[in-house]
Amino acid sequence: MSEFREQVVDFVRDLQSRIVSALEAHEPQMKFKKVSWERPGGGGGDTRVISGGQVFEKGGVNVSVVHGQLPPKMQEKFKSKTTDFFATGVSLVIHPRSPQVPTVHANFRYFEQAERAWFGGGADLTPYVPAPELFRHFHSCFQKACASYALDAYTRFKKECDEYFFLPHRGETRGIGGVFFDYLEGDREKTFEFVKKSGEAFIEAYIPVVEKTKGLKYSERQKKYQLIRRGRYVEFNLIYDRGTLFGLETKGNTESILMSLPPEVHFDFQADLETNEEERQLMGWLKKPVEWADAQT
Amino acid sequence: MSEFREQVVDFVRDLQSRIVSALEAHEPQMKFKKVSWERPGGGGGDTRVISGGQVFEKGGVNVSVVHGQLPPKMQEKFKSKTTDFFATGVSLVIHPRSPQVPTVHANFRYFEQAERAWFGGGADLTPYVPAPELFRHFHSCFQKACASYALDAYTRFKKECDEYFFLPHRGETRGIGGVFFDYLEGDREKTFEFVKKSGEAFIEAYIPVVEKTKGLKYSERQKKYQLIRRGRYVEFNLIYDRGTLFGLETKGNTESILMSLPPEVHFDFQADLETNEEERQLMGWLKKPVEWADAQT
Repeated sequence: MSEFREQVVDFVRDLQSRIVSALEAHEPQMKFKKVSWERPGGGGGDTRVISGGQVFEKGGVNVSVVHGQLPPKMQEKFKSKTTDFFATGVSLVIHPRSPQVPTVHANFRYFEQAERAWFGGGADLTPYVPAPELFRHFHSCFQKACASYALDAYTRFKKECDEYFFLPHRGETRGIGGVFFDYLEGDREKTFEFVKKSGEAFIEAYIPVVEKTKGLKYSERQKKYQLIRRGRYVEFNLIYDRGTLFGLETKGNTESILMSLPPEVHFDFQADLETNEEERQLMGWLKKPVEWADAQT
Repeated sequence: MSEFREQVVDFVRDLQSRIVSALEAHEPQMKFKKVSWERPGGGGGDTRVISGGQVFEKGGVNVSVVHGQLPPKMQEKFKSKTTDFFATGVSLVIHPRSPQVPTVHANFRYFEQAERAWFGGGADLTPYVPAPELFRHFHSCFQKACASYALDAYTRFKKECDEYFFLPHRGETRGIGGVFFDYLEGDREKTFEFVKKSGEAFIEAYIPVVEKTKGLKYSERQKKYQLIRRGRYVEFNLIYDRGTLFGLETKGNTESILMSLPPEVHFDFQADLETNEEERQLMGWLKKPVEWADAQT
């Protein structure tokens, strides 16, 4: 493996273990288990999973280091004669038990194909209770990481996130967004620095949210609301999410890919998700994305 | 509307009301509600829904009569210069509360586009407990309906069903199958007769299954197994089902389309679906389709 690839793999593995430790510090009941898997076409990965925790009802932090031949669909997309590729990344989805604690997803990845190499990634938050101060905190952590990369990076990546995590058939975003970026080429070292900062930003962004919300009480209605909104999470992941569909198409590890699905979900016919002011406020933010970070910084 | 179209619409509406009555006869707690919807591009439909029943936890029997311009994707598919279409059909998914009572789906539809007109449809059963005698009954009802249409019809349509309701990423079918057919052209009257018989066959096939299973006791494990297997149902419908994806792409009525999703679902990481002999038997049938009907008749 080239020295640069090794550096990226080291970063990815280190980030996985730091995220898992940071999460475990807030989970009194259990540790994340390690599950390793191999990819028949080349490479494999380690998934760190938790299931049935007191704070984290289900979650996974997955590292993959894979290589081999591009599947035909991607060959077409990249219009490349060389068909081998290398990819590594860390991706995670955490489904807390309490509707007070938002669901979170993040993903930082590096891809090499023929002469090209690029980074991608991002993070987005799916809350079930309005907590504007926490949402501002979440966004501003990524805004800071972006500032070091390019002046307009946060504005662009925030917009890409709102556009990507959108369910057209519902007219709603998946949550209150975050950042999303892909195909970052150009100065490799500088881009890698930005991705490292974004990984760090994830820990700073999410862990305090867990800390401040995990002890809060919640009503039966808030739990029911979470179970229904988790259904929208399932709809997004199975209908639209490129990573999920690509993973399944290329015969990736099914259990690691679908680990992103929430543990318990309700699909009600014509569910009313605006039964009170709190819910109407949240749904308003999903229908029309909000500027959470301070535009001046 | 042409006389033939009217006949088909009459059949579809009549079948809907007979299916709803037959189901209601086994539901002590509530009736199916009627929800009407309009399609912005032309036409609309009536969905008969039940939610929170004692026997039927969630279900819908939907009639649609729609017309208008083909969406661009379908124009490409049909390679036709005329872009208007007419379609009508009845489609249903029933999710019983008890794991003893199998989930069922059926759908009978008629489509006109340019000079062409065809019928499609089918039905498939998703059980959570082995009941080979009931599965044989379910299949043999459709086998009888098929026999009047063509000698090899049941064999072909049974195979198409096993192939269609297959989840490649799980290596499993959705259930124990049934029949599936599409693009039946040729003698319009004869085909219509067959589709009418298939609709009748659905009632004969499923209602006795409900009758024989609705009173059976079940264990906590059987309920848990159902909740996890319902997750596979969601995976099929959102990742692979052409009707669902077509409906969402063409901006159909989201609630009527996604009514097919089960009311309560569990997505466990690395769920073991073969914890006992009963489950192993069922999973065996999903991994390798079985000939349920007597090949001689």
